[in-house]
Amino acid sequence: MRIGILGGGQLGRMLALAGYPLGMTFRFYDPASEACAGQVGELRCGEWDDSAALAAFCDGLDVVTYEFENVPVKTVKEVAKRVPVFPSVDALEVAQHRIREKKMFAASGLNVQQYAQVNSAAEARDACIRLGLPCVAKTTGGGYDGKGQCVVRTVEDAGRVWELLGKRELIVEEFVRFEREVSLIGVRDRKGNFCAYPLTENRHEAGILRESVAPAPNVSVSMQRDAEAHVRDLMDQLKYVGVLAVEFFVVQEANGGQTLIANEMAPRVHNSGHWTMDGAVTSQFENHLRAIAGLPLGECSCVTGTHTRMVNFIGALPGIHELLSVPGVRLHDYGKSPRAGRKVGHANLVMSADDGDASIRAKHLNELARVASQSAK
Amino acid sequence: MRIGILGGGQLGRMLALAGYPLGMTFRFYDPASEACAGQVGELRCGEWDDSAALAAFCDGLDVVTYEFENVPVKTVKEVAKRVPVFPSVDALEVAQHRIREKKMFAASGLNVQQYAQVNSAAEARDACIRLGLPCVAKTTGGGYDGKGQCVVRTVEDAGRVWELLGKRELIVEEFVRFEREVSLIGVRDRKGNFCAYPLTENRHEAGILRESVAPAPNVSVSMQRDAEAHVRDLMDQLKYVGVLAVEFFVVQEANGGQTLIANEMAPRVHNSGHWTMDGAVTSQFENHLRAIAGLPLGECSCVTGTHTRMVNFIGALPGIHELLSVPGVRLHDYGKSPRAGRKVGHANLVMSADDGDASIRAKHLNELARVASQSAK
Repeated sequence: MRIGILGGGQLGRMLALAGYPLGMTFRFYDPASEACAGQVGELRCGEWDDSAALAAFCDGLDVVTYEFENVPVKTVKEVAKRVPVFPSVDALEVAQHRIREKKMFAASGLNVQQYAQVNSAAEARDACIRLGLPCVAKTTGGGYDGKGQCVVRTVEDAGRVWELLGKRELIVEEFVRFEREVSLIGVRDRKGNFCAYPLTENRHEAGILRESVAPAPNVSVSMQRDAEAHVRDLMDQLKYVGVLAVEFFVVQEANGGQTLIANEMAPRVHNSGHWTMDGAVTSQFENHLRAIAGLPLGECSCVTGTHTRMVNFIGALPGIHELLSVPGVRLHDYGKSPRAGRKVGHANLVMSADDGDASIRAKHLNELARVASQSAK
Repeated sequence: MRIGILGGGQLGRMLALAGYPLGMTFRFYDPASEACAGQVGELRCGEWDDSAALAAFCDGLDVVTYEFENVPVKTVKEVAKRVPVFPSVDALEVAQHRIREKKMFAASGLNVQQYAQVNSAAEARDACIRLGLPCVAKTTGGGYDGKGQCVVRTVEDAGRVWELLGKRELIVEEFVRFEREVSLIGVRDRKGNFCAYPLTENRHEAGILRESVAPAPNVSVSMQRDAEAHVRDLMDQLKYVGVLAVEFFVVQEANGGQTLIANEMAPRVHNSGHWTMDGAVTSQFENHLRAIAGLPLGECSCVTGTHTRMVNFIGALPGIHELLSVPGVRLHDYGKSPRAGRKVGHANLVMSADDGDASIRAKHLNELARVASQSAK
């Protein structure tokens, strides 16, 4: 089966590496000629609005998917005239607009915080004050990795936020005092079958994911079950095909319970699912491909008796000798040149319950990542 | 690091898929333009004696390895003038000649059966009778997957074997009444560090590997330890860098003990190590690359608490829907067109000790493989 992928970054690259063992071949489309997926498959370069280049890209493909959620809807619609595209353009349109996203979450039974849609400086200011300070303002579309958003702490901030974020439609959200962040990766196939990976706990720094642990510690059976049920409902409503990630805040309640507040979704394979490459029976990449190719889904469970820690390399990779000397480490280098703030790779540590020095190795890995990251320019 | 691989078959393909996550890139050299590794990396076509094509292949590479043991020694010597080649040509020369191989085995403390080197019809006949019938005659070089060898059962056979095998130098071997076959995959890095995977039990049909189980059942600690010690010695003597596979016969002794008789070696990643792709902490492919690239070796142990069954697909793949419906199956499709007797893929089943229906799933997988194989022409 010949798969086309819109976007040639690391997610596309890892999709291809997961798909070759299934007998698939890959072609990428990206405006950048140095896109790292081009090292492992055919790369066609073109702008997102270049109809001729898109038509040539589609030629001979069986199915197309996308690896980042800011691919223009118009591009996907154009491709979909020629080749089936999964996830559908409907899912993409929801994910590209934070208001539509919030409404879908609520319609699926997911908790969302209070929010307001604003279209002027005055509306933005009023919404911030009404929802209470601090609050969070975000552009309704176009943001990722913490870009296009800010925390509004003072009345002065509230007056400036419209200008600060580029005078475009905003969502203002009630500030959630969360204890931690988790995500659920679900996958739905063409027949509507669904499965989900265990909730994953994620630690961000400056808006960028630094580390994940799966399964997330201290998750009750009911919390996992409820998250799965609502995400399944969401995916059913969207007739979604492929992998979807939903990020949640975990709020500690006064009665000792925990509540999940849905924060945002990504209609694609997701960084918080990278642990599945080594720690799950079937990786998120393979399951996304199985889904869009009309194949049966694989199991989403952890490799028996293990949990996995994923550490992101931001800016630069640690030295490979040091890295591969950490027992059990599984490296995923994206083949990208170093640059401050750029995701250039990650490593997974798959650990069994009786693995005494696992936390020491994880600490060491984090330290290597931190030092490398600070060295990046 | 830019890796060159002589040979563009499935072993080269799987080396590349294991190496991309380490940030490596790959170039293959193969006489066949349809070589399946070309689907996942740059393929240069040329004959083994085409000096100009080999020189162009070497351009810009950091290190070269080979993925099949019948690559001509002359080719490897020519490449080695330009780029470091691992394993060295010495190892290749030993593996390409069954007499030299037997002598190396014996020098490393491995048990070998009685044998004779013969260079005429009369010598062949005499040796067969002297070693006892039945015995086995093999060409000293050039055989694989059961080709270039035959069992000599009668005095008439003994008289005909020289002609039958092409009137070329033969080795005649005492017939070993083995209970089963096992193999040891060892890896040695540039500094001389060594590690080995658990002994793997292998089932052949018509000279072709059909199924492996790792770790092999009923292997004592001392059998594993002795096999490792002797293979380590062998690799030290050859100053070997990379993965080496040694195949053994297991002979049941009258006193209840078991003896390993070394049968042959392969100076490369090996089919009986394909289980390591899903069942070991580090795959044989990754460890071969780590070794030749001068990187530290990864752990050779099984994923904690698991054993793995590998089923080869010979001739044709089963239908992918049926195959991916087997819970936990991990497919490795080589991207080759079907043909009777051709290795076109394999599947791994990684099983934990308490996995109740594992043997049912394994049986089902074998049945799918058998039916597909029979359908191939």
